[in-house]
Amino acid sequence: MENKEISQAVIGRLPRYFRYLGELKDEGIERISSQELSDIMHVTASQIRQDFNNFGGFGQQGYGYKVEYLYEEIGKILGLDKTHNLIIIGAGNLGQALANYMNFERRGFIFKGIFDNNPALFGRKIRDMEVKSMEEMEDFVRDNEIDIAVLTIPKTSAVMVAEKLVQNGIKGIWNFAHVDLNVPKEIQVENVHLSDSLMKLTYNILRFENENNN
Amino acid sequence: MENKEISQAVIGRLPRYFRYLGELKDEGIERISSQELSDIMHVTASQIRQDFNNFGGFGQQGYGYKVEYLYEEIGKILGLDKTHNLIIIGAGNLGQALANYMNFERRGFIFKGIFDNNPALFGRKIRDMEVKSMEEMEDFVRDNEIDIAVLTIPKTSAVMVAEKLVQNGIKGIWNFAHVDLNVPKEIQVENVHLSDSLMKLTYNILRFENENNN
Repeated sequence: MENKEISQAVIGRLPRYFRYLGELKDEGIERISSQELSDIMHVTASQIRQDFNNFGGFGQQGYGYKVEYLYEEIGKILGLDKTHNLIIIGAGNLGQALANYMNFERRGFIFKGIFDNNPALFGRKIRDMEVKSMEEMEDFVRDNEIDIAVLTIPKTSAVMVAEKLVQNGIKGIWNFAHVDLNVPKEIQVENVHLSDSLMKLTYNILRFENENNN
Repeated sequence: MENKEISQAVIGRLPRYFRYLGELKDEGIERISSQELSDIMHVTASQIRQDFNNFGGFGQQGYGYKVEYLYEEIGKILGLDKTHNLIIIGAGNLGQALANYMNFERRGFIFKGIFDNNPALFGRKIRDMEVKSMEEMEDFVRDNEIDIAVLTIPKTSAVMVAEKLVQNGIKGIWNFAHVDLNVPKEIQVENVHLSDSLMKLTYNILRFENENNN
């Protein structure tokens, strides 16, 4: 399949399709119509057809989509048929949570190491991996062809660590530090600003209350 | 200030303004022009003025914005001048990370309790709070007027737990479970689907490589 120019809005919806299709697959469901998918995902069937048309359609009219085929094709588009060497910087609660939380291997992510600057953590095992010193990070990234670094360190050190990662050939940063990183445009950054997300929640709670008191 | 109808896109940008203004305030900066803010935030000055015009402008022409005033006004819009009683469901690594991670109190979030169904965790202290049994959750939510529940439990139990929370008067759910919750529309839900975010990262890495190989 060719990799055409697709809007980030469509891309943003692909992981959700992938998640639902994975569940359908696990339940042993072989085919699904855009209408059925629409019902479980609370997205219009027309939106689903439009999104899938970006990638050639995936389905036959009146016949529905093959769940496993669609799951695999969307997985390929998302790069999940490739493997990605990944390290975690910061072995605190969040770093440990991420190491243990995700179905890393199932999705092609190979957890290669976890780093921290707290000597008390050196050698502690997290998911069968000993915590390494930050001083080892640069050589490690180069020697192990690390693609993705997950940053779960305070914002004060995140900017400098990101620079070092970039210098040593990282391709993408999954950034949990409360700071926007300035990296060259060839480095992909996906930010998870947790406090921003919590504030959106409080805004929406407040707005709902105001609307219903006025 | 009146609470006009503001687009979710503008709302989505407010926490980021709030974060930058908080940093400027901490650095002792009293005034900033839209152009200076534009330079540090990598957003156009015109975008900033448009966003702020939704809330009456905040600034005087040619004079810049008062940092502390703007910070406080945006905080009010986000509901951060109010207090929110918050509990965490799931005392695993992620629940512990969130309990320890956020500047909860500084932003008006009052951490009231943490719950798990693993007896091995009962009584363990997380941020000076003993882990409670899930069986205590419903009474606790009612008796302590809990506004927000943070879900860091597996998707298999998240849907049922969300229902119980709703029945007992929760206003908002910050959902880290890998499942979309079906709750009444008066309950606000903010999803953090971590694996979706990681997949967007791999997509963008792959897209960049394809663009530069073709």
